[in-house]
Amino acid sequence: MNFSLSTNVLLNSLLISQKALSNKTPAPYLQGIKMEVTPKEVILITSNSDISIKLSIKDDSLVVESSGEILVPGKFFVDIIRKLEGDRIELSVVDNNSLRMVAGDSDISLNLLNVDDFPELDFPLNDEPIKIDSKIMKAIIHQTTFATSAIENRPILTGVNIRVEGEKLTAIATDSFRLSQKMIEIPKNMESMNVVIPGRSLDELGRILEMNLDEILIHLNHKSILFEYGNILFQSRLLDGNFPETSRLIPTEFPIIIKFNKERLASSIDRASLLSSKESSSSIVKLNLRNDNIVEITSNSPELGKVTEKVYPLEKAIGMPIKIAFSSKYFNDALKTFNSEEVYVKFTGEIRPFVIEGDLDPGVIQLILPVRTE
Amino acid sequence: MNFSLSTNVLLNSLLISQKALSNKTPAPYLQGIKMEVTPKEVILITSNSDISIKLSIKDDSLVVESSGEILVPGKFFVDIIRKLEGDRIELSVVDNNSLRMVAGDSDISLNLLNVDDFPELDFPLNDEPIKIDSKIMKAIIHQTTFATSAIENRPILTGVNIRVEGEKLTAIATDSFRLSQKMIEIPKNMESMNVVIPGRSLDELGRILEMNLDEILIHLNHKSILFEYGNILFQSRLLDGNFPETSRLIPTEFPIIIKFNKERLASSIDRASLLSSKESSSSIVKLNLRNDNIVEITSNSPELGKVTEKVYPLEKAIGMPIKIAFSSKYFNDALKTFNSEEVYVKFTGEIRPFVIEGDLDPGVIQLILPVRTE
Repeated sequence: MNFSLSTNVLLNSLLISQKALSNKTPAPYLQGIKMEVTPKEVILITSNSDISIKLSIKDDSLVVESSGEILVPGKFFVDIIRKLEGDRIELSVVDNNSLRMVAGDSDISLNLLNVDDFPELDFPLNDEPIKIDSKIMKAIIHQTTFATSAIENRPILTGVNIRVEGEKLTAIATDSFRLSQKMIEIPKNMESMNVVIPGRSLDELGRILEMNLDEILIHLNHKSILFEYGNILFQSRLLDGNFPETSRLIPTEFPIIIKFNKERLASSIDRASLLSSKESSSSIVKLNLRNDNIVEITSNSPELGKVTEKVYPLEKAIGMPIKIAFSSKYFNDALKTFNSEEVYVKFTGEIRPFVIEGDLDPGVIQLILPVRTE
Repeated sequence: MNFSLSTNVLLNSLLISQKALSNKTPAPYLQGIKMEVTPKEVILITSNSDISIKLSIKDDSLVVESSGEILVPGKFFVDIIRKLEGDRIELSVVDNNSLRMVAGDSDISLNLLNVDDFPELDFPLNDEPIKIDSKIMKAIIHQTTFATSAIENRPILTGVNIRVEGEKLTAIATDSFRLSQKMIEIPKNMESMNVVIPGRSLDELGRILEMNLDEILIHLNHKSILFEYGNILFQSRLLDGNFPETSRLIPTEFPIIIKFNKERLASSIDRASLLSSKESSSSIVKLNLRNDNIVEITSNSPELGKVTEKVYPLEKAIGMPIKIAFSSKYFNDALKTFNSEEVYVKFTGEIRPFVIEGDLDPGVIQLILPVRTE
């Protein structure tokens, strides 16, 4: 095996491939990057317990002298390529057990892993994948995965539920204290789908969706889901089990609606959280819509002190005065996902879930359960 | 107590004061900031086991309604002031046990600590302090403290030895594997001095020396050293014991001298360290000056692989070929302290300490002990 290409092209590909590398694994081959070199392309394959990535390099700078298949220790390989100087790099296998890299004034040989240890991975493509604008896919990920559960006692809640029905795709995440939902319209005649994708897999996918490609194709299979994005195939396992039915959790009538400037509301809640008593590791603050249309955000800790923040709604609030308490972290996590500078906080009652919405974020609902106090 | 001032002025002062706050201490009062408000100034005092800081705020924005003395929980106070909006802040003591802060739309009350618990601290000033340009003091710190020992089995080596003799001030740090020395000329007739200052204290002092004041005044006392810098008094304890006599460690004759571009040398050593075997947690690389005036930096690990880097000296090297092995970390730590783009590496022999010097860094010697291999 012997080929050369632009160092930067190789590096940028590796920075994507490494997202599926295992750092800690009893299986050393999962710390490896499989390289398949053919006369026309170099394929990089990586895999861990959640995701597998297959990436094809077909760059003008690529010159293949001879083909081959090797398994390279991933972390060392990426570190070396990252630090190399020299625009071009030549790679060749020496003595069947070592990858020699020559670039600039560097001559580096890296011992190889046994390529036969690497599992055979299938990346099955369907004939009729679902097509989504990659910017919308990135938004779906950004606006839902943060609300998945971090604890594993209900594994299904560590994932994001994605459903396709008719012309609607709905993504839902909940840790049972809050819920994030994003709904988009898709072309007709897509096959129905109802899967739960690990939140961590989607986070990694979101980090890859930085290039400016228009579309991402979604291929659904029995036990896995495969995202096709340019020259990248990104496959994730699915979570087993039934995602809870959440549609009835979201109130449909909101007698109280307050319109806020998002940044001002967020910084008031942030300050109020500084001196709040801690309940189950999250800081509880209270929101109080007064008769004079001023909103007070308050916290009070007998040991530390107390905070009163005044926030002025952007318009006369709709509905009665209300007092409600909630986790400042959940609230500000949700606020951060909005593109809108102005948001609506909509209440049903003092002990009922409330939602946040924004004009520039169609289809997005962030729901938070209040906390009972006193 | 009741006063008001610019929020930013208070914040910038607190960011300095907090460097002497204890985070973890069995004495809660050491997590406090003592504020002394008089008609003309606000004084902030903080102290931990190593350092004490006394800072005076005499800003045009300061308006004192009534004087007083309080002890504020440091971390909470800094966090609140950092996050406040509003150009001006009003502070007043309420019910003798709470500090009320009003700024912008925020109204925050922070419970106070008992000011009587805070120790009486003395910040004694001498009549004839040593004067040093603050940029030079910053350089002394930057070029020596990194070489102090991080382990406590020889406590004296966790400090930097500072000596004043005649017209010379010398700062020396060593962890017994490397040594950093910076010598500067000072005005005549300064009192002699030979003290060891904890490296951590100097690191904190270095972070404060960002303002553009010309001079720092050094006041030496029996058990402590006090740096006077504008409106800041920064006092550190001294380490007990005798600092080792290091002058004979530094070779005076160098039969082999190689001139390098600093960045190129550093990046070659960095790459070579990627695949080096680890000895006592530091990566060992070899430097080989060949007969053809090319320098090879190499590493070789049977498990991982090997690296050969070629580096071209900037001039014909002086002296014989040499092969020498050393810690890549120690070498690059030392290189980073140079302002010079070109450095001289000067050798006495293959198992003798070697030094690095640079034209733009007069008075600086970085010495490294080689490692025996094979």
